[in-house]
Amino acid sequence: MPGYDPPVREMRFVLDTVAGLPGIAALPGCESATPDTVTAILEAAAGLARDVLAPLDQPGDHEGARLENGVVRTPAGFSQAYRSFVEGGWNGLPFAEAHGGQGLPLVVATAVAEMWTAANMSFALCPLLTAGAVEALERHGSEALKAQYLEKLVSGAWTGTMDLTEPQAGSDVGAVKTRAVPDGAHWRISGQKIYITYGDHDLAENILHFVLARTPGSPAGTRGISLFLVPKFLPDAEGRPGRRNDVRCVSLEHKLGIHASPTAVLAFGDEGGAIGFLVGEEQRGMACMFTMMNNARLSVGLQGVAISERVYQQARDFARERVQGGAAIIRHPDVRRMLLLMRSRTEASRALAYFTASCLDIARRSPDAARRAQAQSRAELLVPMVKAWCTDIGVENASLAIQVHGGMGFIEETGVAQHYRDIRIAPIYEGTNGIQAMDLLGRKLARDEGAAARALIAEMRALDAALAARSEDGFAVIRAALAQGIDAVETASASLLAIHAADPGRAAAGAVPFLTLFATVTGGWLLAKAALAIDDPARRLSARFYAESVLPQATALLPAITSGSTVIDFAPELL
Amino acid sequence: MPGYDPPVREMRFVLDTVAGLPGIAALPGCESATPDTVTAILEAAAGLARDVLAPLDQPGDHEGARLENGVVRTPAGFSQAYRSFVEGGWNGLPFAEAHGGQGLPLVVATAVAEMWTAANMSFALCPLLTAGAVEALERHGSEALKAQYLEKLVSGAWTGTMDLTEPQAGSDVGAVKTRAVPDGAHWRISGQKIYITYGDHDLAENILHFVLARTPGSPAGTRGISLFLVPKFLPDAEGRPGRRNDVRCVSLEHKLGIHASPTAVLAFGDEGGAIGFLVGEEQRGMACMFTMMNNARLSVGLQGVAISERVYQQARDFARERVQGGAAIIRHPDVRRMLLLMRSRTEASRALAYFTASCLDIARRSPDAARRAQAQSRAELLVPMVKAWCTDIGVENASLAIQVHGGMGFIEETGVAQHYRDIRIAPIYEGTNGIQAMDLLGRKLARDEGAAARALIAEMRALDAALAARSEDGFAVIRAALAQGIDAVETASASLLAIHAADPGRAAAGAVPFLTLFATVTGGWLLAKAALAIDDPARRLSARFYAESVLPQATALLPAITSGSTVIDFAPELL
Repeated sequence: MPGYDPPVREMRFVLDTVAGLPGIAALPGCESATPDTVTAILEAAAGLARDVLAPLDQPGDHEGARLENGVVRTPAGFSQAYRSFVEGGWNGLPFAEAHGGQGLPLVVATAVAEMWTAANMSFALCPLLTAGAVEALERHGSEALKAQYLEKLVSGAWTGTMDLTEPQAGSDVGAVKTRAVPDGAHWRISGQKIYITYGDHDLAENILHFVLARTPGSPAGTRGISLFLVPKFLPDAEGRPGRRNDVRCVSLEHKLGIHASPTAVLAFGDEGGAIGFLVGEEQRGMACMFTMMNNARLSVGLQGVAISERVYQQARDFARERVQGGAAIIRHPDVRRMLLLMRSRTEASRALAYFTASCLDIARRSPDAARRAQAQSRAELLVPMVKAWCTDIGVENASLAIQVHGGMGFIEETGVAQHYRDIRIAPIYEGTNGIQAMDLLGRKLARDEGAAARALIAEMRALDAALAARSEDGFAVIRAALAQGIDAVETASASLLAIHAADPGRAAAGAVPFLTLFATVTGGWLLAKAALAIDDPARRLSARFYAESVLPQATALLPAITSGSTVIDFAPELL
Repeated sequence: MPGYDPPVREMRFVLDTVAGLPGIAALPGCESATPDTVTAILEAAAGLARDVLAPLDQPGDHEGARLENGVVRTPAGFSQAYRSFVEGGWNGLPFAEAHGGQGLPLVVATAVAEMWTAANMSFALCPLLTAGAVEALERHGSEALKAQYLEKLVSGAWTGTMDLTEPQAGSDVGAVKTRAVPDGAHWRISGQKIYITYGDHDLAENILHFVLARTPGSPAGTRGISLFLVPKFLPDAEGRPGRRNDVRCVSLEHKLGIHASPTAVLAFGDEGGAIGFLVGEEQRGMACMFTMMNNARLSVGLQGVAISERVYQQARDFARERVQGGAAIIRHPDVRRMLLLMRSRTEASRALAYFTASCLDIARRSPDAARRAQAQSRAELLVPMVKAWCTDIGVENASLAIQVHGGMGFIEETGVAQHYRDIRIAPIYEGTNGIQAMDLLGRKLARDEGAAARALIAEMRALDAALAARSEDGFAVIRAALAQGIDAVETASASLLAIHAADPGRAAAGAVPFLTLFATVTGGWLLAKAALAIDDPARRLSARFYAESVLPQATALLPAITSGSTVIDFAPELL
C-alpha cells in the first residue's frame, strides 16, 4: 500500500518564503510560533499523518462508514486514531489558548491540516467540520453557550457538524424549511437535513449540530434564517453527555468517494422537536455562516493541495519503480511531463493557499487597522480562488496520477483511483466552484469596483524588475509568461466589470474562466517569487514549466471570459 | 434511473455531412448502405440500446461481474441481452456478407457502436473485442482456421479476446514471456495474461483467445512474437464446443469502473499447455496486431464520444428539472456554459470519429489506388487523435456532468458518477494516450516528413473562403479562431519535425500537447463544415462557443509543444 511522506521541508519553505511566517509570528497573539516550535509541530504532525492516518486510508475506503441499527460506525482504527489526534492537542492548534487551544497562526494550522487530508481525507473531514463549529460558537455564541460547549469543541472531545442543505434546497440556502419554535429558554427544531458530513459517528462521545432553521414569522429567503446549536446528547448537570436529543441519522449516502466519512441524512424533531440553542441573533443565521465561510472554503481548497501532493508522490514513486522496455518509465519524456504538470500545479496551489491563510492571520491579528482591512479584502478576493482552483487542480492531478500508472491505475488495489474518487467532491461542497466564481465576480470584484484586484495586480507587476535582474536560465521565460498573464487578468477584470454593470448574466457566463485565469496567474506569481528566493534549479525548472505549459492556457481564456453572449444566446430550449 | 436517448437525427446528420455517407455508399461493396437502410438500422439499433442495454447499465455496475467457483458470471440480464444482440445480427454489421456479416460500411457501424457504448459501456466491450478478433482472423488466419471459426465470431455466437498484456509488460509488448511450443499440427501455449477484457464470461458458449506468445528460438523484443488462436472449448467433430482447453480464469480485477465487464487474469497451460493455432506467420504476431489496431483504437476513441453524449443528456435533463431559487438551474449562465462545453466538444469529437471511419472505408473499398493510399495515410494520422483526444474529452465531460449535478452528482444512485468511473479506462487501454501521441509524432508525422499532416492542413485552410462568404452571426469568430488554430498546427508540426530529427526525446515531451492541438483544430474544422452545411442557429452557436472557449486553449499549447527541453532538463532525480 503506497504511503504518504509529508513534505515538511517544502511546507516550511513555502511558509517562510511565500506566506511570510516570520512576519506572522511577530503579530500579537502569534508569539508562540517561533521557528523551533513550528519545526517541532510540523515534524510531530508528519509522524501522526504518516504513521497513523495514512495506513488507515485505503482500508477505510474499502470498509466504509456503516449505519447499523441506527448507529453509525466508522472503519476499524478510526476511533483509536481520533483519540490519538485529540490527545495530541491537534484539534485546538489554531484556537485561542483561553479556550484550550494552542493559539498558533492559521497559516501554521493550514500546513498541518494539509498533512491530515493528504494522509486520510475521510478522517480529516471530521476536524475540518469541528473547526467551523468552533468558529461559529467563538464569534457568535452567547457566553453561556461558550462556557458550556467551546472547550469541548476546541479539544475535539466533541465534534461539530454544519447542517445547511435540505432535499429541496441544494445550493439555495434561502429555501430552508427546517423550523425552530421557541420553548422556554431553548427552541424546538424540526426538519430534515442532508449531506451532513460526520452527521453521526462513533469517534467522539457527543456531536454538536449547527443547524440553519426558520423561526415563526420570519421573512422568506436567506434573511429569515437563524442558526441553532443542537447537541446529539444534552449535557447533564456535570456537563457530560446526558439525555439523547430528538435527532436521528436516517441513512448514509452511497458516494463516489470519501467512503470512510459518514455523510448523513439527519431527521430533527420526529418525536416532538430537537432541543436547540440560538447562536447569535434570530434571523442572523446567514451572517454567522458567512463568518465561517472564509476558513471553511480555505480548508476545502486545501484538500485540493493535499490530494495533489499525495497523488504526485504516488505517481512519481511508481514511475521510478516501474520498468518497461528496460528502463524505469520516469525516463519517458511524457511521463515526466505529466509529473511536472502535477508538481508545478501542486506547488502553485500550495503557495496560493498558504499565502491566503497568511492574509487571514494578518486580517485578524495586525495591530494596524488599515493593514487589517487591506489583508481582509485581499483574503476575500483570494478565498474563492483557493477553493475553486485548488480543488479543480486536485481532480486533474488525481486523473494524471492514474494515467501515469497505466492499467494499474484503474485497479482499486493500487490505491490511486481512491484519490480520484475522493477529491471529486471538493469542487462541489462548501459552495460549488461555479458559486465561488460568482462570489469572486459579483461580490469580491464588483463590490469595490475592482480595487482589491487592482492592488494585487500592481503587486504582481512589481515582481517584474526582480525577474528582469536575474540571468539564470528560465527567468526570461517566466517573466514573459507572467507579464502576459497579468495583462490578461487586468483586461479581463476591467472588461468583466463593465459587462457586469450592463448585463450581470453575460458576465456570469465568464465567471469560472475568469477565476481560473486570475488564480493561475496569482499562483504563477507566487511560484516566481519562490524561485527568486532560493537558488534551486528544480524550483526554477518547475516555475519555467508552469510558465510554458500552464500560464499560456490561462491567458488563452480571455475570449471565453468576455464572450458571454454566446452562452446567453444559447437559450435553454436549444440545448 | 436516467435513460439514454440515442441521437439518431444528429448521427445521421454527421454521417451525411461530415463523413460523406452518400459517397461511401457508392463504393464497391457498400451498396447496401442506401439512405433508407441506414435509417432503418439506426432506428432499430436505437431501440435495442435504449430499451434493452441502457436499463442494464446501472444495475450491472452495482452487481458487477463475479468469479464463483472458477466460473465468471455477468450481471443479471446481460446474457439475455447478448442473445438479443446476436439474434438481431448486430455483431456482424460491418463484416463481409461472405462470412455471415451485413457488409455495411464501417462508418455506419461506428454510429451504431456509439449507441451500444453510450447505453452500456461494459456490455459493449464484449462485441468490441470480438470485432478485433474477426479482423485478425479475416486478414491473417489460414483458410482452415477461417472455415472453422470465422462465422462463429461474425455472428457473435462465440466471442473473442485480445491477450497481449503480462504482469511484467504493461505497454511493453516486446517483453512478452508466454511461450508456444509446436505439438503436431498445433501448438502448446503456457503463460499468464492480465487485463483480458471479457477473458471469461457466460454470454456465449465459447471464447476464442487471440494470444501473443513467443516460439522457441525466436529473437527478443517484438520481432519474436507470434499470434495464436486459443479456444476456451476445442470444437468437436461437428464444430460445436467440445473439450475444455487448458486455459483458466484465475481472478477478476477490482476496478474503478466498467464493473460489469469482467477483466480477467488468464492462466494458460497449467496442465501441460493450452492447444493453440498459429494465426498468420510465425514471428509476425506484431504485424497481425498492427492491422487490428486502427479499428480497435477508433472503437476506443468512440467510447469517449459515446459517454460524452450520455453524460451530456443526463446533465442537460437534470439542469432542466432541478429548480433552485425558483428557476431551473439551466437558467444559470455557468450551468449553461458547462453544458455548452460538453455539447460542443461532444459534437467535435463525434465528427472526428465518424470522419476517420469514413477514411478507413475509402482506404479499404475505393477502386482508385491513389485515393485508397491517401485515405489510408489520413486515417493513420487521425486514428491516434480519435483514440486519445476523444477519450480525454469523455473523461472531462463526465467530470463536468458531475459538476452540473452538484452534490447529487457525488451520490452513486444518481448514476452520473458511474460514467466518470467507467470512462477513466479509455485513455489507458488500447495504448495509453501518451503512446497514441508518440505514434502520431514518431510514426505518422515523422514517417512521411509531415506530408499527410500538410495535406490535411491545406484542406482545412480551404474552408476559409466558405466561412468568409457567410455573414450570419458567429462565422467571423469561427473563421478567425480556426485560422489561428491551423497556423498553430502548422507551426507545431514543422517545429516538432525539426526537433524530432535533432533530439527525439525533446520532441516526445511535446507529443501529447501536439496531439491535443491537432485534434482540437481538426474537430473545430469539422464543426465549422457542419455549421456551414445547414442553417441551424444551435449548431452555429455551438461552433462559435468552441471557437471562443476551446480552440484558443489548443492554440495556447504551442509553447508547451516546442519547449521540450524543460522536461528533459528536469532529470528524474530532481522530481
